[in-house]
Amino acid sequence: MINDLVKENERVDDLQNGYYIIQDPRKFCFGMDAVLLSGFARVKKGEKVLDMGTGTGIIPVLLASKTMGEHFTGLEIQEECAEMAARSVKYNNLEDRVSIRQGDIKEAVSIFGAASFHVVTCNPPYMIGQHGLTNPHMPKAIARHEILCTLEDVVSQASKLLGDRGRFYMVHRPFRLTEIMQVLTKYKLEPKRMQLVYPYIDREPNMVLIEALKGGNSRITVERPLIVYEKPGVYTKEILEMYDMI
Amino acid sequence: MINDLVKENERVDDLQNGYYIIQDPRKFCFGMDAVLLSGFARVKKGEKVLDMGTGTGIIPVLLASKTMGEHFTGLEIQEECAEMAARSVKYNNLEDRVSIRQGDIKEAVSIFGAASFHVVTCNPPYMIGQHGLTNPHMPKAIARHEILCTLEDVVSQASKLLGDRGRFYMVHRPFRLTEIMQVLTKYKLEPKRMQLVYPYIDREPNMVLIEALKGGNSRITVERPLIVYEKPGVYTKEILEMYDMI
Repeated sequence: MINDLVKENERVDDLQNGYYIIQDPRKFCFGMDAVLLSGFARVKKGEKVLDMGTGTGIIPVLLASKTMGEHFTGLEIQEECAEMAARSVKYNNLEDRVSIRQGDIKEAVSIFGAASFHVVTCNPPYMIGQHGLTNPHMPKAIARHEILCTLEDVVSQASKLLGDRGRFYMVHRPFRLTEIMQVLTKYKLEPKRMQLVYPYIDREPNMVLIEALKGGNSRITVERPLIVYEKPGVYTKEILEMYDMI
Repeated sequence: MINDLVKENERVDDLQNGYYIIQDPRKFCFGMDAVLLSGFARVKKGEKVLDMGTGTGIIPVLLASKTMGEHFTGLEIQEECAEMAARSVKYNNLEDRVSIRQGDIKEAVSIFGAASFHVVTCNPPYMIGQHGLTNPHMPKAIARHEILCTLEDVVSQASKLLGDRGRFYMVHRPFRLTEIMQVLTKYKLEPKRMQLVYPYIDREPNMVLIEALKGGNSRITVERPLIVYEKPGVYTKEILEMYDMI
């Protein structure tokens, strides 16, 4: 019966923690960024969480598996993607705690209502505009380029979706750090924790993880560096522990 | 004759590169932050450089020793400190390329004129206000706390002192990173390079080095992590090389 949930061309990835994600390799597969964001985010007992642009549903599934949060909603604009994520939720028997909703990030406040979540997470498209894209309708393009929503769309909606002292977690590219901080503070989401992810100890970071607090004061804790590889093909102890903990 | 330049209670520190700095240990001695800022800053042939709040004069002396910059000015509000820095300049026979000027950062534009430098450097006071200070008139307190000037004073003056495409280099504490980026962009100094300094590979960073470009676009390069200690008391190769290069 469980196999009825998986379509042709799809595969089931084992998250090694008792949970699974259905993916279609022809479209978009989740990356390490989603796993690192799930490791960085803090969800407390009883909290309601929204993941904006959830894709395969990886972030709600991981957060449901490792936290005591009460409920997790994944919002995804692409219909096929949302439908596949909903099947992953069923595959994991998580329907009580995780739901997937098809819809547009830009309309998230209309869909869910203001101040309706304690925590919002987002692994948004990193690249500005459609530069160099041959087909902006492809799922991969939509996930990677700001075609359907911009950073400001994400942040402005997140701010309204959170109650006072609500927390916003985002993974992004370091080259946009100044803009990220400007947009966050513009919408009263004060950056409170930041961690840079360096592929190797002697290389530039390729990801930044940020926690922002709605209505917080201006003081940020930059955390120890997160280094991914010990040497080519060999993860650091920290990354292995994170994959173990999920 | 050279000893006439050094007063009682003062000592002469050998920078190991043929240059020396006179310091009074009862007052304020330069730290690793000044050395790292000098290593991070880029000064091209023929450029004019201002160091705001120069203290012992360490930054202009280091930059004069390692770059082809044409002229370096150190601005220092504390009279005794400025006078001692001027003696360090003489001690190193750098009078042709380095000058020390006693004066207030807040009046730097009136003193030097707008757009009069290609590069401005600053190792400003890190701490907000005078919280916990018993004597706010002490040289150490003035160097560490925002008693005589704020971050905004430093950045607003630096912006006016630089011509278009001029570069501003600053070392600061990571906990103020959001505010730093807000103030820089407010005054059209766009952060272009940033490096976090981690005391150990598994510890939070305690310094951030920033290069901002007057009139630049919003895109920042975060550099590889700068890690200070291999283990307690043992510098990393990178730090040893930096001390060697000065």
